[in-house]
Amino acid sequence: MALTLYWGSGSPFSWRVLLALEHKGLPYDSQVLHFDKQEHQSPQMLKMNPRGRLPILKDDDYVVFESVAVLYYLDVKFPELPIFGASPEEAGVIMRVICEFQNYAEPSLQKIVYAIFSQDTEHSLEELNDAMHVVGREARTIEGRLSKELWIVGSNYSAADMVIFPWIQLLRRALGKSAAAELGARFLPMERNYPALARWIGRIEALPGYGRTYPPHWHPEPV
Amino acid sequence: MALTLYWGSGSPFSWRVLLALEHKGLPYDSQVLHFDKQEHQSPQMLKMNPRGRLPILKDDDYVVFESVAVLYYLDVKFPELPIFGASPEEAGVIMRVICEFQNYAEPSLQKIVYAIFSQDTEHSLEELNDAMHVVGREARTIEGRLSKELWIVGSNYSAADMVIFPWIQLLRRALGKSAAAELGARFLPMERNYPALARWIGRIEALPGYGRTYPPHWHPEPV
Repeated sequence: MALTLYWGSGSPFSWRVLLALEHKGLPYDSQVLHFDKQEHQSPQMLKMNPRGRLPILKDDDYVVFESVAVLYYLDVKFPELPIFGASPEEAGVIMRVICEFQNYAEPSLQKIVYAIFSQDTEHSLEELNDAMHVVGREARTIEGRLSKELWIVGSNYSAADMVIFPWIQLLRRALGKSAAAELGARFLPMERNYPALARWIGRIEALPGYGRTYPPHWHPEPV
Repeated sequence: MALTLYWGSGSPFSWRVLLALEHKGLPYDSQVLHFDKQEHQSPQMLKMNPRGRLPILKDDDYVVFESVAVLYYLDVKFPELPIFGASPEEAGVIMRVICEFQNYAEPSLQKIVYAIFSQDTEHSLEELNDAMHVVGREARTIEGRLSKELWIVGSNYSAADMVIFPWIQLLRRALGKSAAAELGARFLPMERNYPALARWIGRIEALPGYGRTYPPHWHPEPV
């Protein structure tokens, strides 16, 4: 077995797979590609994924991409410490929560985060406010789940946590920018507005191997 | 075991689950709800899915919704005739193709179909042309797969077929409207433009139980 993960620093899709690999304790060759050098669009990468998107997982000669599909492949291939549930009922809820997050939260999260980081003016302030409203509503639903349980679905860390966590971290980072102060005040500080979500973030940050999943370019520059 | 499916006629999301239930030969209580009477928004329905969306599957006291999650639940609970693959490698490809369809084809399909059926003027002709361009590109990729294999992933009918098929049928129906003649000419007739896709549609239409999955309101009115 030889797993190689091709990923991009700060990509929430890549981060999901790193969390899964660390959780399952699988050895892997970690290949960080630089978006700014277009390394994800090299001929070698396009041969594996013609869409030129990351993450891509290679397992000997087998290639899989699209983050949720990579998580699923890893879980079927390495079923110890299952991340898609230990029963049909749990499996259904985990997949349902992932689908809901992708269908109802992710489009608004993308809009907000890309607007802040790219300082684009394509989206009006009204659009961003609407997107923030949607994100707040979805976050309250997740807050409700986490106020009753340790993890997003029940008592085990699962693919639902891995899918959602990187987006929450990315959102926090975006809203912490001074240019986003007004939007940010509706979400931050999480300890006050979403205390159960804040505790859940702390639990994931304390997991073994978490440091290896953290976006390298998010570390402060050495002085 | 008592399965009840709440579904809506013509909803591609509902259709997926009907195809899976028929494929696995599972007995189920079929409850068609009428969107035009807002039956999917009744208190009973909102109690099961607060988003008021269909399909919803009830299995005794257990409830699951979001179409891909329902397919997944059914496959874990009733593993005979698997629809998410018989090996990790197949599982990865099936989930990857589903994710790609949802991420890259579905938004454009939604735009086109809803524009035609609701005769809305929200989307400019240019936007619809762009959406049709995306759909054409994704359809050619699927055409490529189907020109080499009987089913979208390999030699078995799978969740990938069930996810994609209802959207193709809905697209054909929309593009067949006289108001959509110009857009339609870029896709129809499928027998000429997408011959492998057309043959695949025929194969699914010939499956046992297909008639029970067909949207009731699509049948021609009796004379």
